[in-house]
Amino acid sequence: MKIARFWDPVENAARFGVVEGEAVFDVEGSVFDAIKVGRASRPLQGLRLLAPCCPTKIIMGGLNYIGHAKETGQPIPKVPGVLQKSVNTLIGHEEPIQYPPETNRLEYEGELAVVIRRKMRNVEPADVPACVLGYAPGNDVTARDVCRDGRLGLIFSKSWDTFCPVGPWLETDIDPDNLDLTVRVDGAVRQHVNTSDMIFPVARMLSYFSYFMTFLPGDLILTGTPAGIGPMNVGQTCEVSVSGIGTLRNPIVASPRRVAGEPSKYPLPAA
Amino acid sequence: MKIARFWDPVENAARFGVVEGEAVFDVEGSVFDAIKVGRASRPLQGLRLLAPCCPTKIIMGGLNYIGHAKETGQPIPKVPGVLQKSVNTLIGHEEPIQYPPETNRLEYEGELAVVIRRKMRNVEPADVPACVLGYAPGNDVTARDVCRDGRLGLIFSKSWDTFCPVGPWLETDIDPDNLDLTVRVDGAVRQHVNTSDMIFPVARMLSYFSYFMTFLPGDLILTGTPAGIGPMNVGQTCEVSVSGIGTLRNPIVASPRRVAGEPSKYPLPAA
Repeated sequence: MKIARFWDPVENAARFGVVEGEAVFDVEGSVFDAIKVGRASRPLQGLRLLAPCCPTKIIMGGLNYIGHAKETGQPIPKVPGVLQKSVNTLIGHEEPIQYPPETNRLEYEGELAVVIRRKMRNVEPADVPACVLGYAPGNDVTARDVCRDGRLGLIFSKSWDTFCPVGPWLETDIDPDNLDLTVRVDGAVRQHVNTSDMIFPVARMLSYFSYFMTFLPGDLILTGTPAGIGPMNVGQTCEVSVSGIGTLRNPIVASPRRVAGEPSKYPLPAA
Repeated sequence: MKIARFWDPVENAARFGVVEGEAVFDVEGSVFDAIKVGRASRPLQGLRLLAPCCPTKIIMGGLNYIGHAKETGQPIPKVPGVLQKSVNTLIGHEEPIQYPPETNRLEYEGELAVVIRRKMRNVEPADVPACVLGYAPGNDVTARDVCRDGRLGLIFSKSWDTFCPVGPWLETDIDPDNLDLTVRVDGAVRQHVNTSDMIFPVARMLSYFSYFMTFLPGDLILTGTPAGIGPMNVGQTCEVSVSGIGTLRNPIVASPRRVAGEPSKYPLPAA
């Protein structure tokens, strides 16, 4: 089942729906309970899709593919690394990623995103699937030059507004351990991997995190990017595709402050 | 005005109130609008206080006192550093900090906490006070041994459940640039500073952050810890006092997994 979240211009509110072909059906009640698909529907075309979740936190598994650990010169981790993005970063399918004036190296990191369905704490890997609502393509947008600036740069580089596109929707019935993940910039393939190459498969990573943090319905986890990270520039379009789910597409635009020629408020490393 | 958030056992819900002496008055409407104090009140004593905010994110200014930069061997920053805690960390006054089995060095970091009142984006320092609801003592609890473990340890070390006590309440009418901040463990003073020693005063730090992230009502910012960081152990009590506001007090208890003698899921660095 494909679960989208979209803006309802009549009710002037965000709501969840179930995508079937070219139609989106209303969800009766909560998407976190047994999902009841209503009779009312509207055409998918023309609908403004939002990120398919309202997380209280966005947690990322750092270095989950050997290729990415190698390309960034870091050792293969023995346990999942933990990173975070603040929720102001979240945007949906077709929403623009804003390129701020503080970076000269804005990069994509295509990832499989996981949305939590029920409260999850101290959960063994076998019990993780019952805690998951669904999966979607995600993009851990990173200001690479800021990322390389000392210990704190790593956190800062990932939390600008618009730096976490997720969508176009969640797929609830899919095996997360055998999915093709492909990132394209203006149509050219930049990253390609199968999720079976993860160092820590989804269930193991989420179980591990659940021993430290309580997860709530709607929480978002990005599960790490493969080799092939690289830049995106203003005017380009970045696509993250996951087999069996769909393609998340976002144009890159200059942020209003970059358009205005505002000087960077962040002194970049000398590099 | 002192704004508390507490558990109402009759309504079985959290609510905000205004503390006057030994009584807590109901707030009519939203605390984020012009605050209307109702007539109904209840005694402060016996009330279960909660963290006085419901943030969408918790952002910390790293290295904001010269003494703390020196004691951790880091250069004095030229711009505010950015750190984050996930919101599962948030607890209130008198709630226990849980010491997990993954660390052997749990440390306090006393800080001045700021809660946002209205949407804040691209705001100059002079306009920051109008965006702030109030100030409170906060504790950026950190697993120091985990913190020192590579680039990702810094993030992980601060985001266990219960690692962000804030309270007992917010003070709305106070000058954040001239407050005495004192941390005591079992009554012994461990940190003491005046906020006038901040490298980046509150208005400047929040203005800077607002150029990168949109802040929403209820968002929480911790403004950095002074020199004197050190350990807390099970059975001890940590207090963070801020002049003109009050004292945040939290006991340290072993987490259920530590009590059960569960082995650490996190391989600690060799030290």
